[in-house]
Amino acid sequence: MIYLDNAATTRPDGRALGAALSFTEEQYYNPSAGYAGGAAVRSAVERARASLLAHIANEKFALVFTSGGTESDNLAIFSSAKRGNAVTTAGEHAAVEKSFAALRARGIETRVAPLLGDGRVDADALLSLVDEKTTLVSVVHVGSETGAVNEIAALARAVKKKNPRCIFHSDGVQAFGKIPFRLTDEIDLYSVSAHKIGGLKGSGALYRRRSLHTEAQIFGGGQESGLRSGTENVLGILAFAGAAEDKFRTLREDYDRLRAYHDELFAALDASIFTRLSARDGSPYILTVGGRGLRGEVLVRMLWDRGVVVGTGSACSSKHPRSRALEACGVEDGLLDGVLRFSFAPQTSREEIVSAAKALNDCAHEFLSKV
Amino acid sequence: MIYLDNAATTRPDGRALGAALSFTEEQYYNPSAGYAGGAAVRSAVERARASLLAHIANEKFALVFTSGGTESDNLAIFSSAKRGNAVTTAGEHAAVEKSFAALRARGIETRVAPLLGDGRVDADALLSLVDEKTTLVSVVHVGSETGAVNEIAALARAVKKKNPRCIFHSDGVQAFGKIPFRLTDEIDLYSVSAHKIGGLKGSGALYRRRSLHTEAQIFGGGQESGLRSGTENVLGILAFAGAAEDKFRTLREDYDRLRAYHDELFAALDASIFTRLSARDGSPYILTVGGRGLRGEVLVRMLWDRGVVVGTGSACSSKHPRSRALEACGVEDGLLDGVLRFSFAPQTSREEIVSAAKALNDCAHEFLSKV
Repeated sequence: MIYLDNAATTRPDGRALGAALSFTEEQYYNPSAGYAGGAAVRSAVERARASLLAHIANEKFALVFTSGGTESDNLAIFSSAKRGNAVTTAGEHAAVEKSFAALRARGIETRVAPLLGDGRVDADALLSLVDEKTTLVSVVHVGSETGAVNEIAALARAVKKKNPRCIFHSDGVQAFGKIPFRLTDEIDLYSVSAHKIGGLKGSGALYRRRSLHTEAQIFGGGQESGLRSGTENVLGILAFAGAAEDKFRTLREDYDRLRAYHDELFAALDASIFTRLSARDGSPYILTVGGRGLRGEVLVRMLWDRGVVVGTGSACSSKHPRSRALEACGVEDGLLDGVLRFSFAPQTSREEIVSAAKALNDCAHEFLSKV
Repeated sequence: MIYLDNAATTRPDGRALGAALSFTEEQYYNPSAGYAGGAAVRSAVERARASLLAHIANEKFALVFTSGGTESDNLAIFSSAKRGNAVTTAGEHAAVEKSFAALRARGIETRVAPLLGDGRVDADALLSLVDEKTTLVSVVHVGSETGAVNEIAALARAVKKKNPRCIFHSDGVQAFGKIPFRLTDEIDLYSVSAHKIGGLKGSGALYRRRSLHTEAQIFGGGQESGLRSGTENVLGILAFAGAAEDKFRTLREDYDRLRAYHDELFAALDASIFTRLSARDGSPYILTVGGRGLRGEVLVRMLWDRGVVVGTGSACSSKHPRSRALEACGVEDGLLDGVLRFSFAPQTSREEIVSAAKALNDCAHEFLSKV
């Protein structure tokens, strides 16, 4: 299969997973256990934490392991927005969008900044929503449907200039391990997910500024410095850190190569049918196109039958048939039902790109000939 | 190593893990994906759910996958106790104890029933705490430190007789897959953990009565019928269901055999030093002893050096040096620093029991000779 749905999930990194699996066969001890075997597992978890921190953060940051990007977003948002108002964008993942809905139900005022045509948040509009009562601003780093890259360092700086006391969070799930980036002084919280970069589903983390008070959402044995109780997902944590090491080692060259493939794939599509919906200067890992007269979910199944795996961009909330983010950046109605998202991994090859483009053109012609 | 700390965590079931791992190599798709590969993973998750349900529940129950027993307890408690008062026992795991502390901080009145000398909750005292304003009663099924087995079916019946509208939850983490048991009509919520029965750390579930309104605590893409968002931990879920199948297949014979080993181990300990702290008719999987003049954490390390792995009973909250539950059931002060917990798995052999008893006697004598 040609797997081009890496924004939905990735094939686990065999090397990283293999190394982590030794902890299920031999060092399967509870990291909280008081004997040497427990301490060895604890050390391995701490090495994984240090490794993940070093990729994008300085010593001002700590990291809490969670069950995934969704839990990280929830932890960041509910810990931060206790009163006043909270500001976000129209291009967020459901984990942020629905957490904001839960804030509203708790009586917190929420404000949503609109998107520009290229999928990025309208920075001026976002800033105009921030006032002295704002306790949280949450801006996705890379939009999972648009591939748009928000300049979160600059946005955080501008937000803090307007209200130094509000907390700035970013969902970095589609950016981490893919986009060259380091956390800056004005970013407080940053969510990441293991399974989007070759780790396992059910594992993620929240980077947090050490000086920031973070409030636990799950209570118990006091693991993760009391911020996230529950026996640590040791396999998931170790596989995550190992996968991240592999990704960061070649991040820049993968970024440049996939940028070229991204352009090549779009150029190979039938221009009379397909419109590029993701920004050209967005993440090279995501190419979203709209096909006039097509139905995305049908094309996805036709492509599967030809050995090409792509998404419609909404795998994480499959009950919502249309992309909120694409609607929000003004994609015309006639394209919204024919959305296809190609998303890449470092192992994606040029041959796969060429084959996928041909398969999509063929499927689109077949579909349109039958309508 | 002779591993007798199975109440802290277990060695993952190799057969179950091996089968589940095929989903990381081939069917690594996102279960929410719209193509056949996604549907295949979704089906595997649903088969795992059905299998786990069938072991202990009838069709009135559903099951939510979570990141572990701690999250299951938190979900059960915060979903249920919204007003009035909530009742629990002095013998709970930290996940329940600390969630109740969080309820108090939210303005919910909490009431804690005392334990009997054998570690079970005092049923009369528990019932006397339930009134018309009680919204939740949470009673651990098997105490992780005492091995005491609460008769939760009878307790739930009595509680519902007094207040039919309150919700009855039980933390079944140390009971599931070990103690013969099925959920009854009066039990509403039941928490279980994968890694206590040969599954992976970071995976668990909450059984819930279908007719009960359960409120999500983690929001996002709407997975788990909207009750627990976040991409499913497919590997953890499949390994959990596989491990449970193995455990339930031989549950009754394991139970009887371990009962005999449990007695044999205690009988082989030096009676001038060791007192049995866990109830004789408690879970056969847990034998907790107190050694007069000993220090549990030192003995644990001495035993490790001799290849015997046991716990002090508080692996899940290692910062609390003494067992709250053992204090609560009236263990005398002179024994509380010398607590050791042996906890078994179906693969525990008679030879291991004999060797462990000898090693503990030797270590205790060595320790006492040096004091």
